[in-house]
Amino acid sequence: MEDFSPHLDALLDLAFQEDVGHQDVTTDAVVPVDARADARVMAKQPMVVFGLGVLSRVFQRVDDTIWVDRHVKDGDPVGVGTAVATVKGPARGILTAERLALNLLMRLSGIATLTRAMKTGLRDHPQCRLLDTRKTTSGMRALEKAAVRAGGGTNHRTGLFDGILIKDNHIAVAGSVTEAINRARKTAHHLLKIECEVVDIQGVKDAIAAGADAILLDNMDDATTAESVKIIRAAGRAIFIEASGNMTMQRIPKVAALGVDGISVGALTHSATSVDFSLEFSVSATA
Amino acid sequence: MEDFSPHLDALLDLAFQEDVGHQDVTTDAVVPVDARADARVMAKQPMVVFGLGVLSRVFQRVDDTIWVDRHVKDGDPVGVGTAVATVKGPARGILTAERLALNLLMRLSGIATLTRAMKTGLRDHPQCRLLDTRKTTSGMRALEKAAVRAGGGTNHRTGLFDGILIKDNHIAVAGSVTEAINRARKTAHHLLKIECEVVDIQGVKDAIAAGADAILLDNMDDATTAESVKIIRAAGRAIFIEASGNMTMQRIPKVAALGVDGISVGALTHSATSVDFSLEFSVSATA
Amino acid sequence: MEDFSPHLDALLDLAFQEDVGHQDVTTDAVVPVDARADARVMAKQPMVVFGLGVLSRVFQRVDDTIWVDRHVKDGDPVGVGTAVATVKGPARGILTAERLALNLLMRLSGIATLTRAMKTGLRDHPQCRLLDTRKTTSGMRALEKAAVRAGGGTNHRTGLFDGILIKDNHIAVAGSVTEAINRARKTAHHLLKIECEVVDIQGVKDAIAAGADAILLDNMDDATTAESVKIIRAAGRAIFIEASGNMTMQRIPKVAALGVDGISVGALTHSATSVDFSLEFSVSATA
Amino acid sequence: MEDFSPHLDALLDLAFQEDVGHQDVTTDAVVPVDARADARVMAKQPMVVFGLGVLSRVFQRVDDTIWVDRHVKDGDPVGVGTAVATVKGPARGILTAERLALNLLMRLSGIATLTRAMKTGLRDHPQCRLLDTRKTTSGMRALEKAAVRAGGGTNHRTGLFDGILIKDNHIAVAGSVTEAINRARKTAHHLLKIECEVVDIQGVKDAIAAGADAILLDNMDDATTAESVKIIRAAGRAIFIEASGNMTMQRIPKVAALGVDGISVGALTHSATSVDFSLEFSVSATA
Amino acid sequence: MEDFSPHLDALLDLAFQEDVGHQDVTTDAVVPVDARADARVMAKQPMVVFGLGVLSRVFQRVDDTIWVDRHVKDGDPVGVGTAVATVKGPARGILTAERLALNLLMRLSGIATLTRAMKTGLRDHPQCRLLDTRKTTSGMRALEKAAVRAGGGTNHRTGLFDGILIKDNHIAVAGSVTEAINRARKTAHHLLKIECEVVDIQGVKDAIAAGADAILLDNMDDATTAESVKIIRAAGRAIFIEASGNMTMQRIPKVAALGVDGISVGALTHSATSVDFSLEFSVSATA
Amino acid sequence: MEDFSPHLDALLDLAFQEDVGHQDVTTDAVVPVDARADARVMAKQPMVVFGLGVLSRVFQRVDDTIWVDRHVKDGDPVGVGTAVATVKGPARGILTAERLALNLLMRLSGIATLTRAMKTGLRDHPQCRLLDTRKTTSGMRALEKAAVRAGGGTNHRTGLFDGILIKDNHIAVAGSVTEAINRARKTAHHLLKIECEVVDIQGVKDAIAAGADAILLDNMDDATTAESVKIIRAAGRAIFIEASGNMTMQRIPKVAALGVDGISVGALTHSATSVDFSLEFSVSATA
Repeated sequence: MEDFSPHLDALLDLAFQEDVGHQDVTTDAVVPVDARADARVMAKQPMVVFGLGVLSRVFQRVDDTIWVDRHVKDGDPVGVGTAVATVKGPARGILTAERLALNLLMRLSGIATLTRAMKTGLRDHPQCRLLDTRKTTSGMRALEKAAVRAGGGTNHRTGLFDGILIKDNHIAVAGSVTEAINRARKTAHHLLKIECEVVDIQGVKDAIAAGADAILLDNMDDATTAESVKIIRAAGRAIFIEASGNMTMQRIPKVAALGVDGISVGALTHSATSVDFSLEFSVSATA
Repeated sequence: MEDFSPHLDALLDLAFQEDVGHQDVTTDAVVPVDARADARVMAKQPMVVFGLGVLSRVFQRVDDTIWVDRHVKDGDPVGVGTAVATVKGPARGILTAERLALNLLMRLSGIATLTRAMKTGLRDHPQCRLLDTRKTTSGMRALEKAAVRAGGGTNHRTGLFDGILIKDNHIAVAGSVTEAINRARKTAHHLLKIECEVVDIQGVKDAIAAGADAILLDNMDDATTAESVKIIRAAGRAIFIEASGNMTMQRIPKVAALGVDGISVGALTHSATSVDFSLEFSVSATA
Repeated sequence: MEDFSPHLDALLDLAFQEDVGHQDVTTDAVVPVDARADARVMAKQPMVVFGLGVLSRVFQRVDDTIWVDRHVKDGDPVGVGTAVATVKGPARGILTAERLALNLLMRLSGIATLTRAMKTGLRDHPQCRLLDTRKTTSGMRALEKAAVRAGGGTNHRTGLFDGILIKDNHIAVAGSVTEAINRARKTAHHLLKIECEVVDIQGVKDAIAAGADAILLDNMDDATTAESVKIIRAAGRAIFIEASGNMTMQRIPKVAALGVDGISVGALTHSATSVDFSLEFSVSATA
Repeated sequence: MEDFSPHLDALLDLAFQEDVGHQDVTTDAVVPVDARADARVMAKQPMVVFGLGVLSRVFQRVDDTIWVDRHVKDGDPVGVGTAVATVKGPARGILTAERLALNLLMRLSGIATLTRAMKTGLRDHPQCRLLDTRKTTSGMRALEKAAVRAGGGTNHRTGLFDGILIKDNHIAVAGSVTEAINRARKTAHHLLKIECEVVDIQGVKDAIAAGADAILLDNMDDATTAESVKIIRAAGRAIFIEASGNMTMQRIPKVAALGVDGISVGALTHSATSVDFSLEFSVSATA
Repeated sequence: MEDFSPHLDALLDLAFQEDVGHQDVTTDAVVPVDARADARVMAKQPMVVFGLGVLSRVFQRVDDTIWVDRHVKDGDPVGVGTAVATVKGPARGILTAERLALNLLMRLSGIATLTRAMKTGLRDHPQCRLLDTRKTTSGMRALEKAAVRAGGGTNHRTGLFDGILIKDNHIAVAGSVTEAINRARKTAHHLLKIECEVVDIQGVKDAIAAGADAILLDNMDDATTAESVKIIRAAGRAIFIEASGNMTMQRIPKVAALGVDGISVGALTHSATSVDFSLEFSVSATA
Repeated sequence: MEDFSPHLDALLDLAFQEDVGHQDVTTDAVVPVDARADARVMAKQPMVVFGLGVLSRVFQRVDDTIWVDRHVKDGDPVGVGTAVATVKGPARGILTAERLALNLLMRLSGIATLTRAMKTGLRDHPQCRLLDTRKTTSGMRALEKAAVRAGGGTNHRTGLFDGILIKDNHIAVAGSVTEAINRARKTAHHLLKIECEVVDIQGVKDAIAAGADAILLDNMDDATTAESVKIIRAAGRAIFIEASGNMTMQRIPKVAALGVDGISVGALTHSATSVDFSLEFSVSATA
């Protein structure tokens, strides 16, 4: 988690401000300052765990004497009833941080779990990447993209700043696929590839002719996808082929079989449901 | 939206940093600085709209000459194909802000829509509040709680700072319901009520005896809930009765019929799915 | 102090910026970087001490190798000439931080001391709370409210966000006490009590009838207060009675004797004068 | 007020966070969003007003459609019952901002009023400056120093960064007045004068000999002060003479008569009491 | 300038804090608040102007009633004595902002001017890009890269986040060019090209074999560069060829003639000297 | 470095954001998380080193387990091939921080080296200060002024807030040197000296007559400078004489010989060129 902790801390600032504010009035009233507790974080369903680093960070931001002992690693698949971590320390801090820590762990593990499940559809197509999108939760992109990686997926560009993806509306303004790609090539720095979204065979041909480095086949049916792949592979140079558009568990292996290099699935981050954890709390000492 | 704009701006700072960074390299390359566009925000399914203020704010943060014209009000139910707003201005800004704006609008409208749906289950029990919880998305609590209100729900406490809710783990540390409530009463300021979570009839009786202002019946079956309500109503003073625990569309009216004052549903914010919008983009002028 | 350190750090950021800026030019010129000193913080008058945690934080923000040894606890009463703490470490940091540290300690101890003094007036009325108000110094509310607690007072609501207190101007807008209370009850979450400010017997009756949970008797004479208490106690339910309005040391026991539950005193934070401390500085080593 | 608004805004950020937090729950519940009000800010005692710019800023930070009309200027003396400003606009914003705005205005006007009063003691000694100190409220230095100017006082250095003032503890570390002044002269930039605090005649002589530009006579009796002035004036160069130490209204003219150039009074900012204002609120329109 | 104003504002925050602090004590003392002035910004040498947007922003941050009228456009070449802009408004703000505004304008125009000069060396090689590097001034990268564009240069990657450039030390850790490129290809998202730095012919061959998208010929002599270009062009796919290493005005055309696609020059930002501007100030009104 | 670390950290925040952003994609892909390295920072030319504290801070901000061992002290002169520091720790962090760390070290050492060189011109005039100016890099003033000190220079005022320097444009607004100085004396606090810029003998006389504490002889020829010095020294009181205007290595000793107290040289910070360092990197362990 260390890699993106500056951004994580900014998110936690917001989260603590909105959830804890000036004080956890219940805990501070009811729990003595010297009460200590152990709390085991239990998986209540089979899953791929991701977010143990975040979990630690949340507890330690509230009280840096809380110790989080990880029993599994981020990215590990675990079964029902697995204790993924034990949290030890002052009971006040544990109770104040509990909800925020679990909310994040549940959501991130949900994304890792869904990604792993969808990735199994590519078991017979190891050359095909399962890609995420920009349809992430505001403020959590780095975390959610790390969860995708933990689940076996591969990241698409991070944001609008580190990849060129020309979409239909860009083409509408530029006037044509050719013009749009030419404009992009002129000003983009030389380490950025140019991907162009197309919706039909003519678009594919235009994109190839204009020199696209990658082509996004958006919402095509299987036949059109297959023909597009054939045309692109005949272009005489390496062009990355991405397919997108309402990809489901069922559809992913079929599309992969058509020969594309990657399938992007907004649902990985957008529609993942949280997986369930519980906190087994036990008082270890009270004044 | 004006009420929570400081917090909203902090969230948008994070969101723009992670999505736009130093530049939208595609748009800046392909779209001329003086190209202008109109974009209609279209509902693609029946829904309760919420988040038009957020939508405006996102576009105007990117370019304050973008004008967002609202055709409906936050909280309005709309049908498929309704244009809820029109966005006009520089094409660059519209394209750069599009994804972030839609992501937020889709999520918030999803919450309002789910809340409205669940609220219909209380049609015959107008005295019973449909309550949200703290299971919100990190950084979006104020927005999500506003969406719940727009859908007809009522907010529970905002966070740990503006309401006392004694949970099982608090009781475990304090030793008993009575002790926990006594401690809370001693230090809490006099405008905060004390709510106590209980799981059985003995807990109900203890909470009444200790002077709880509100009692949360957690995960009780209907018979126990009914008996609890009966005991509480006989206490001779006003006590707010909240029921919680895996509440579904089906279960809500049944539990309301048992006479509780409110039903809290984590799913309102935690499991709401985004509703679908599209942006109908048309170039209005290009150099 | 740990509880409110995030907010405290924000205040100290401002305070260091305005007092130290880029450099303490005198100390950096005159005091060698390796000079070390001991400094004893001496109480120059009888007082209740509060703010030793703040004192530590100020010194350690300037130089985290400065060690502050506390000889008494926050909330302790001490006599003239008591050394409440010893500060040891680099002389530069001690001299640069001295004024800010003492200013805060003197003000906070002044509040604790005044609170303790006023609290003695309630010696025969232990059921009556001595309450603070929102008339605190901008930026120092959490600190000043902690000082009130250290002196034996009880906090009122923290701010406008965690308690409902309907004042005369609210009533003026709503049209009547009844309408104001009804509106508040409709939207407030169920863990917030509703307090209503009244100035005469009719107001008391209206507030009871409208279901107020607490009633603030503002600027009433003793006879009216007594009658109000009698009416409220006859209401058949628990209503918290607060009295306010130019409360002095003399008046507090008299009003408490009338049977109110709490007396709020703006002067606790607004008119407390700083108590006096000195720093006995001795050079322990110089290059 | 414009000069120090960046710092003012940082202070207001803290103040709004601690007082308003996520919402003024009373006002938002009771006062309709379209209710409008006029509020006259009335002086309840004779005073020198200071802080009308701050008052405006507070109201406009809450709602920038609130209009504050100033009837007097900062620094004006006013009598009981003077309306110093009228605040017009949405009733919600006015009520939410009221306490913070008044708290600041009352404190700052209190400082200006006390300064004016003490300044009258220098009526016959126009060459003698009435100086403030660093004993200001944390976070409010720029505001409080402006209030001193408004009351006729003159500012001392702003903080530790824009003036050299060698105090007893600095001398203790350096070993002697001479050594301390020499060290300061060596590294200080050439536009900073060097002031040295002394407590006796020997100190005065040492400071002159070492080339001090200003000498602070700390806690001297009148005879010693008089002799010090005589010695300093005989030094053959311009040396600023400052006197300090428990200066009262009575003592100020006497010390000024001894011929010093300035008298510094911590009480100007440290012990000023707030002056009283009230807000005459009238509803101008309600839905 | 609008594109990078958030980052610019953060830089200006630092710059104003270090230069203006709490107050411009000279200007506030000497210049009446209502004095107004006109100031013409004059080029004192031939140059390519860049930074007029920054100039405006600096003046308007100090006082938003200052009006900056631009007489030329960013990127325009101008001769000695050209008035590039006129600044009108309150004299105080103009004088306080002057130095910061000119410092930035002089440095940025210096970069644009040097870039234009070096670009002339590519007059006969229009296919060869003149590239900048990461050797920019801390905090000014976006501004300096915009200045390079204004001078006719092309940007390299913005930072470490939007382009893969494998350098000698990366190769040292990975063990070989092949291993380094393979690792990069595995985790990089598909829109990032992979560039590899090499220092000899073997490196060129390894990089081609491993599938590099771009090859950086570092510090090669002309003969080795020529041979490298020949080998790379024979690779049968498009590979961008960058040359770097102490490139001078004299060497640039020679290296371009060897057939490379781009020449990167740290000196564009690192060694550009400021060009000279003066401010012709005239008082337009004083009280 | 500790003295200005708050400001330094703000600058590094900007620098890391613009250079590293969300991730160093090359290093994270190519370098294993457990690879460790040693890197020696080698001086490639004779120089005065300054910035080792900054260097440490940069590496430790990226990874606080990186250890920087300093072999020389800030301010030391070193020869070609000197290892000034060794950096040890995780290879990832070292590679990610390398460029930013070296850029700062090279620029700051360049300033220290140039200052030392120019200072040699004052070898025979030890009473004459070599002064810096406000022509520093935005955001780096504290660092650059520390580098000047390390090279043997003396700082002028830090910014507009801690010294009064009346320039030609101030005089233009005030109407005369006399009026400008009088205004400054009236409001400036008593520890600030007043310096006045003059361009001819009449200006010198006016400034003396008006009581200036320091006089800046701007762009005068040697004869006029000499006459100015003579007139000022005859004034009968200590007045600091500063000379400025295109001072070069050649001209500095000549001007010093004319008897001025200080010579200010914008070039110290404005035109210093970076000195050269290299990083000798060796892998110490890889997984």
